[in-house]
Amino acid sequence: MNTRLPVTILGATGIVGQRLVARLARHPWFEVAHLAASARSEGQAFGQACQWRVPDCEPFAGLGHQKLLACDPAVSFAPLVFSALDTQPAKEIEPLFAAAGALVCSNASAARMDGDVPLLVPEINPGDLDLLPEQRQARGTRGAIVCNPNCTTAGLALALAPLAALGLEQVFMVSMQAASGAGYPGVAALDLMGNVIPYIAGEEEKVEAETKKILASRAASPVVSAHCNRVGVVDGHSASVSVRLRQPVSHAELGALLGNFRGLPQELELPSAPRQPIFVHTAGDRPQPRLDIGREQGMCVHVGRVRECALLGTKFQILSHNLERGAAGAAVLNAELLRATGWL
Amino acid sequence: MNTRLPVTILGATGIVGQRLVARLARHPWFEVAHLAASARSEGQAFGQACQWRVPDCEPFAGLGHQKLLACDPAVSFAPLVFSALDTQPAKEIEPLFAAAGALVCSNASAARMDGDVPLLVPEINPGDLDLLPEQRQARGTRGAIVCNPNCTTAGLALALAPLAALGLEQVFMVSMQAASGAGYPGVAALDLMGNVIPYIAGEEEKVEAETKKILASRAASPVVSAHCNRVGVVDGHSASVSVRLRQPVSHAELGALLGNFRGLPQELELPSAPRQPIFVHTAGDRPQPRLDIGREQGMCVHVGRVRECALLGTKFQILSHNLERGAAGAAVLNAELLRATGWL
Amino acid sequence: MNTRLPVTILGATGIVGQRLVARLARHPWFEVAHLAASARSEGQAFGQACQWRVPDCEPFAGLGHQKLLACDPAVSFAPLVFSALDTQPAKEIEPLFAAAGALVCSNASAARMDGDVPLLVPEINPGDLDLLPEQRQARGTRGAIVCNPNCTTAGLALALAPLAALGLEQVFMVSMQAASGAGYPGVAALDLMGNVIPYIAGEEEKVEAETKKILASRAASPVVSAHCNRVGVVDGHSASVSVRLRQPVSHAELGALLGNFRGLPQELELPSAPRQPIFVHTAGDRPQPRLDIGREQGMCVHVGRVRECALLGTKFQILSHNLERGAAGAAVLNAELLRATGWL
Amino acid sequence: MNTRLPVTILGATGIVGQRLVARLARHPWFEVAHLAASARSEGQAFGQACQWRVPDCEPFAGLGHQKLLACDPAVSFAPLVFSALDTQPAKEIEPLFAAAGALVCSNASAARMDGDVPLLVPEINPGDLDLLPEQRQARGTRGAIVCNPNCTTAGLALALAPLAALGLEQVFMVSMQAASGAGYPGVAALDLMGNVIPYIAGEEEKVEAETKKILASRAASPVVSAHCNRVGVVDGHSASVSVRLRQPVSHAELGALLGNFRGLPQELELPSAPRQPIFVHTAGDRPQPRLDIGREQGMCVHVGRVRECALLGTKFQILSHNLERGAAGAAVLNAELLRATGWL
Repeated sequence: MNTRLPVTILGATGIVGQRLVARLARHPWFEVAHLAASARSEGQAFGQACQWRVPDCEPFAGLGHQKLLACDPAVSFAPLVFSALDTQPAKEIEPLFAAAGALVCSNASAARMDGDVPLLVPEINPGDLDLLPEQRQARGTRGAIVCNPNCTTAGLALALAPLAALGLEQVFMVSMQAASGAGYPGVAALDLMGNVIPYIAGEEEKVEAETKKILASRAASPVVSAHCNRVGVVDGHSASVSVRLRQPVSHAELGALLGNFRGLPQELELPSAPRQPIFVHTAGDRPQPRLDIGREQGMCVHVGRVRECALLGTKFQILSHNLERGAAGAAVLNAELLRATGWL
Repeated sequence: MNTRLPVTILGATGIVGQRLVARLARHPWFEVAHLAASARSEGQAFGQACQWRVPDCEPFAGLGHQKLLACDPAVSFAPLVFSALDTQPAKEIEPLFAAAGALVCSNASAARMDGDVPLLVPEINPGDLDLLPEQRQARGTRGAIVCNPNCTTAGLALALAPLAALGLEQVFMVSMQAASGAGYPGVAALDLMGNVIPYIAGEEEKVEAETKKILASRAASPVVSAHCNRVGVVDGHSASVSVRLRQPVSHAELGALLGNFRGLPQELELPSAPRQPIFVHTAGDRPQPRLDIGREQGMCVHVGRVRECALLGTKFQILSHNLERGAAGAAVLNAELLRATGWL
Repeated sequence: MNTRLPVTILGATGIVGQRLVARLARHPWFEVAHLAASARSEGQAFGQACQWRVPDCEPFAGLGHQKLLACDPAVSFAPLVFSALDTQPAKEIEPLFAAAGALVCSNASAARMDGDVPLLVPEINPGDLDLLPEQRQARGTRGAIVCNPNCTTAGLALALAPLAALGLEQVFMVSMQAASGAGYPGVAALDLMGNVIPYIAGEEEKVEAETKKILASRAASPVVSAHCNRVGVVDGHSASVSVRLRQPVSHAELGALLGNFRGLPQELELPSAPRQPIFVHTAGDRPQPRLDIGREQGMCVHVGRVRECALLGTKFQILSHNLERGAAGAAVLNAELLRATGWL
Repeated sequence: MNTRLPVTILGATGIVGQRLVARLARHPWFEVAHLAASARSEGQAFGQACQWRVPDCEPFAGLGHQKLLACDPAVSFAPLVFSALDTQPAKEIEPLFAAAGALVCSNASAARMDGDVPLLVPEINPGDLDLLPEQRQARGTRGAIVCNPNCTTAGLALALAPLAALGLEQVFMVSMQAASGAGYPGVAALDLMGNVIPYIAGEEEKVEAETKKILASRAASPVVSAHCNRVGVVDGHSASVSVRLRQPVSHAELGALLGNFRGLPQELELPSAPRQPIFVHTAGDRPQPRLDIGREQGMCVHVGRVRECALLGTKFQILSHNLERGAAGAAVLNAELLRATGWL
């Protein structure tokens, strides 16, 4: 890995695209070759077309003068492509890049539930990359698509993964999701300030289905029920979770099981891997988004208040960074795994 | 009821006390005789001792010049007493007023779970007032104590009451509670702004125990599991709720059952009774605290998004006003029921 | 005024339009004849096309079934027209209604600075209605256009009006404006939560120019400097104001001058007139938008903390409701003045 | 400077004290010898007595096990002392440490306006350290007290310093201050959420007096008028500022003058010095606290929107970090200057 691999970012001007730019502008393994955006912005400088919203960061991560290209492999191809496209354009554009030979690390929901597409969380199901040859054959592409989960699913699945070994049968989850999960401009200030919005289109279905697909690799097939709420938080999705485990375990043991969990990214020391994927809080009123969300560059999931649930046996609170572990950071970690395991 | 009954408000300067003052200053049946507060404020004018926080209301509801008395039946007795005291002082002071012959409508948690104290929600368990003779005999008092539930329980119990008839077996609830539920000054702005705090001392235990006590009158004894969170909302506790019912029912039937629910306060046309105790929203993203909390002077509970739950069968969102249906309004409605049914 | 006058609301689905609907649905003098909106919504029911955002109000003020018409005098003419249109459509559409004979009470900025258009605040410059014959002649219309000022100017001008008599020479103002001033969806939650945005397009220019035009009727021509900020408030524009007066006066006298100020709307007892146009707070930390903004149905301006300014002599804080005194309520009050003074 | 100088932190558990701990726990020149707090916490471990509120930081900066001492030179003396005490205790305790021979870098307001105490902003008035011999002689102490300004003054004075050379005659400032400026617990969530509080006790007087004292070193003696507001922001005081300069200058020249400003800390490359003390924004809607406050570890002041003021000639927006440039970072930078210039 002496030379840095050129990469393309599709949808670079959006809120997830900006986070990808910030993460990749100084990445040890990857080099931003192309920034691509919708036809409306094509040809403009990145610094002109983009309302930069990454806090306390050099504007445009120093790439403000780079020219925005079309999302078209004919003009913006690279062997590794990050997609922060919306569902509809993703459905159309990502396969073109895969056909042209690129590995596409996609944050879009378009292909996540396709049977031949890995819905990858490197700590949980790295083995799902074995789907790639099948995908290539089925689709007749030289490249392939690898997805990361929805921003809410990402943290939930990671917190649940170690519990699969204890016989995870039922999962109840109520989320309190941050504004940045809705993109930019996303939710109106008038709707969200001092408020709770008890509906996020399509979110509950995604969480229920994606969580099951990811955990299937760990031989768990829990029934999952999700309620999703939007609250007045900038970054960081909180959730109150109850679980039923076949094998009883003390809360201390459960905390240790979560806190000691490690996966392949930690073993391989991938650049974006958190040292500790699941941070278990001992303070009785944590995790809290405003105080905890920046830990490990937003790449760990936080668990706190492990305690008894009168209905399902065990309950706890989780928190994870929707733009990092739940979007940009997840896609980059996926790409790092692809590179470190020889797919790139 | 030609003449208005004199009443005393204990703990008048606090955030619930102020709401009691605002509700009682122009009540058709009751007249504020005494405002009582802690020793620190005793002797001061109400308008001096109190940081008035009821929005868009005449300051101090016009009672700013009234002198604050001690919380002592020797100086502030009235036949009807409203208590907005904290738990510890309530435990000590409320029995003194009951002994002196007063009916005490208490918002404090001190006596709620006592076996001989009605934990009253007039639409649900008016029959629990039959405990009063037993309480008087057991305690040797001429008066008695009647409690309203905790601010989170109040809305939950009301939304669940009509479901008791369908065999309510399990209740899962995750609350997102408003700042005003913590009193004043309560939660620090630094802790709550843009944040979710996943812990409220004693709250989960109260919700689980009180809900069962209230619903027992309807022959329901569900298992209840509560997660309680504080969010950046001013007034109005939201909760995501799932329930298991023995008797299956369509969502349309369930909505009708809730929306058509009426109780004794509606029959008796009590002054503070909401016309419709449970307001069922049809818009897919409601109820929302900022838009809905003021309806029916904060005395109805809102239900929305009735839909299927993969785990328990049915799920929905609720919202209720923690300072009105969950505190001051609840105590006043209890007093109105006592008056209308001849206990006063 | 036995029969209610039919009125049309242009731009009924927007955030100001909704407030007009809420105010006019039960107005003693006016009756909503037509709701008109952009071509996109034309033909739909008001309740379908409109995301109703008036808190604690009957949805759509009971007019949800009314069909939305085009903003075209051929289909939605009434003798009195309220316009909540954006600047560009207002520039085009309002003159058509004026030409067709309607009196147009406009909240748009399009015509405000036109020399023949009254920029009317009924307490300050009712005499400016004398411009109407001139306007009719110049434009060859049977009807006419009457404007209310910008939402920030409205409160400022009202607070300054009584000071004109003291020789108002200089005005310094820094606003902290609410989210609802930007319409809906307006400002993104991601931009406004926990933030201050130090720029509102065109606002400083409007405040400086409109304030001078309104106060000219009182023989005052102050130099005005405005800084405009957006802050995380739902409703209510605050401003810190310093003024230089030619004639020195004590702070007590100034407070009395403001608090005792009355105008023609109070004399005529117009239905939407506040009893006290300027409410002077004595508490040292008021006015505050969350606690004060609902007073007088949002039709008074609040003044507090009158004190010495090291630079200009006098400083104070003001607050007014941007959607009521600054928009919908202002337009309705203008219409009431037109009706009461025989123009309608 | 081979060995690190032992330091004491007085008031270590408060919100400013915590920031001092976080800055000093890994400082290249200083070593935390003692953490001292009020009698209530004395003897407890820092990690027990302190509600740690520094975001995304190792809890207690790794010093959780250190035992809290009394604020008494007999038990917690070090040659360099940082004081985050409240005014009253500071007035009593800081002189004891100075008498015992310590240099006290104080964030308290107690001694700021004393004639023999430097009110130090190292970029502006390093020469004011020449007051120290005078102070020592007058007070008969071996040590001395050096103050940093109030959190609002700090940013204002730094932004104004380069303008002194242009003949700064008048300054108008309206602040919009963050919650963290009030300490912890500070302002109640109920008071601040969705609100503007137009009063901060003593703040306007401090800003006016301290700004003049600091700028006197630059031969400027402007008239200053300050309005201070609290808004719903976590960290970062914004202010809208107008100035009158004797010597006219274009806005481009003014921006360059500010952006190119450097002082002794930059020349000496002090560890906590920002590379660029005044960051001039070109984007028309900046600075904004949520997006900009973390730049340069909170040690630069932000200036934006330099433009014409109808009253005073020039206006602009400023932003600075109240807990860093306005408190903990300021005290540490002062200590670094003392060390680098041989006072320590």
